[in-house]
Amino acid sequence: MLYKVRAEISLKPGHSDPEGETTTRSLKELTYPVRNIGVSKMYTITLEAKSRSDAETKVDEMCKRLLANPTKDNYTIQVEQTQ
Amino acid sequence: MLYKVRAEISLKPGHSDPEGETTTRSLKELTYPVRNIGVSKMYTITLEAKSRSDAETKVDEMCKRLLANPTKDNYTIQVEQTQ
Repeated sequence: MLYKVRAEISLKPGHSDPEGETTTRSLKELTYPVRNIGVSKMYTITLEAKSRSDAETKVDEMCKRLLANPTKDNYTIQVEQTQ
Repeated sequence: MLYKVRAEISLKPGHSDPEGETTTRSLKELTYPVRNIGVSKMYTITLEAKSRSDAETKVDEMCKRLLANPTKDNYTIQVEQTQ
């Protein structure tokens, strides 16, 4: 079966987020009342799996092996839709 | 009041997504049964606003003016949490 899984990779607290900081500054210059911006990456993955939990396990493994950097990234996984 | 708004910037259909394609290829080489991967950018924006809908309107404007490129990007906005 095909599953659609969303994996969001964000920086661990304490790691600097230059893109977020620059975006915050730019929006403040445009007079928007922005306090803080965090930037993260979202992977929308379509994959074959035996079950919802199999899909989740596979994507968890992908995050650990390839998508997230354990020294600086957190990740969250959501199985979104079954086709 | 402070609002937390999530704005996701993704490519419009038909635009090539080299990062998604490369990630798909890498995961297939690791024998994962991946069909397709799309990569998008998520901004988590903390801002001051008068109401939920004011927060949404402001972030919609930010997307139009700075965060999204109208020729190639779609965006979705979610007001997530009120503090």
